[in-house]
Amino acid sequence: MKILITAGPTREPLDPVRYLTNRSSGKMGYALAEAAHDRGHEVTLISGPVSLPPPEGMIVVKVETARQMYEAVRSHLGGQDTAIFSAAVADYRPVAKAEQKIKKTGETLTLTLEKTEDILGSARSVFGFTGYLVGFAAETERLLEHAHDKLARKGCDLVIANDVSQAGIGFDSAENEVTLCLPDASPFPLPRQTKAALARELIAFITQQAALKKTL
Amino acid sequence: MKILITAGPTREPLDPVRYLTNRSSGKMGYALAEAAHDRGHEVTLISGPVSLPPPEGMIVVKVETARQMYEAVRSHLGGQDTAIFSAAVADYRPVAKAEQKIKKTGETLTLTLEKTEDILGSARSVFGFTGYLVGFAAETERLLEHAHDKLARKGCDLVIANDVSQAGIGFDSAENEVTLCLPDASPFPLPRQTKAALARELIAFITQQAALKKTL
Repeated sequence: MKILITAGPTREPLDPVRYLTNRSSGKMGYALAEAAHDRGHEVTLISGPVSLPPPEGMIVVKVETARQMYEAVRSHLGGQDTAIFSAAVADYRPVAKAEQKIKKTGETLTLTLEKTEDILGSARSVFGFTGYLVGFAAETERLLEHAHDKLARKGCDLVIANDVSQAGIGFDSAENEVTLCLPDASPFPLPRQTKAALARELIAFITQQAALKKTL
Repeated sequence: MKILITAGPTREPLDPVRYLTNRSSGKMGYALAEAAHDRGHEVTLISGPVSLPPPEGMIVVKVETARQMYEAVRSHLGGQDTAIFSAAVADYRPVAKAEQKIKKTGETLTLTLEKTEDILGSARSVFGFTGYLVGFAAETERLLEHAHDKLARKGCDLVIANDVSQAGIGFDSAENEVTLCLPDASPFPLPRQTKAALARELIAFITQQAALKKTL
């Protein structure tokens, strides 16, 4: 099976040195890519800036901004059977990037941010993707409500809900604890485990579900 | 000699997952700390979030925000002979940190930023530091003008000017090329070299100059 996986944060520059980003380390996405590769899938990994070594045996596309990740997904989504969007793409970016480093002059600085491209939301509607579509919901409150909303609005087959407010799991942790949200099914919580073990479990589940979807 | 060194970027949170930061990798500051330790100095390293292994044989204080770095410097500056502020401290931070992850609702988002604490500028005036004071100026334009301005305004003995607009040197590069700016002297450019080699040269120079200052 051909699987596209996105991973890591994106960086949205204010000027040549400063940027907006988030606490995603890319560990979960890289673990998913390794697990998918180990299971014999053909993997394309589209990665934001992370400090992890690039995994072997797959196509790795490195990007920095949400716009670049959007373009990379658009280019590589054709022909994929499954897409797993685990990257923590910035929702907002500065409207303009200053050409030179902004000097520390005024007491305050007002920054206007605009929405970035909605990559997961574009998969069905813009890119015409018909394969098995997996999103992640990283939330700090009302986790399952946000996850189910995402599932419906973006046409996902599965949303993996991740409470990033808890210490020891989620962003930049070695372990993770997630809940699977599927259309017309109760939320299914998985036990807390290392990201590598969780990735193997998720890839096994996704492999089965994606195969099942093809037979429908 | 006792040397305090700051290194790395700072992160200024918008909410539990998003933050403002900059491209500093901490490599230059960590190389300076290693070089100072190798020369037999007693080193205190105050580091922002970096993906480098913590160096051996010195006190390492890890911080995240500009305010935390300010407090850590305030706590550790007493009794130091030399202070090298190589960290790329955020100049501005969001006025308020949202308790929960900001949801993607409006088309635009306005962020009000306020100035952070001026750590280098506080060394003499607030912390009463009388030792040898070294600042860094990381600029993308009018480098020496900014560096000399910093030298005078902040009471530095030395400002190390670093053009971060050039590819291959400065932030997140393995190599660096800097110019030494001293009061009442012409700018003194050093050749481009690895950060480790440059750190040894800078520590040798600073050791001599700091000893010289003590005899005055």
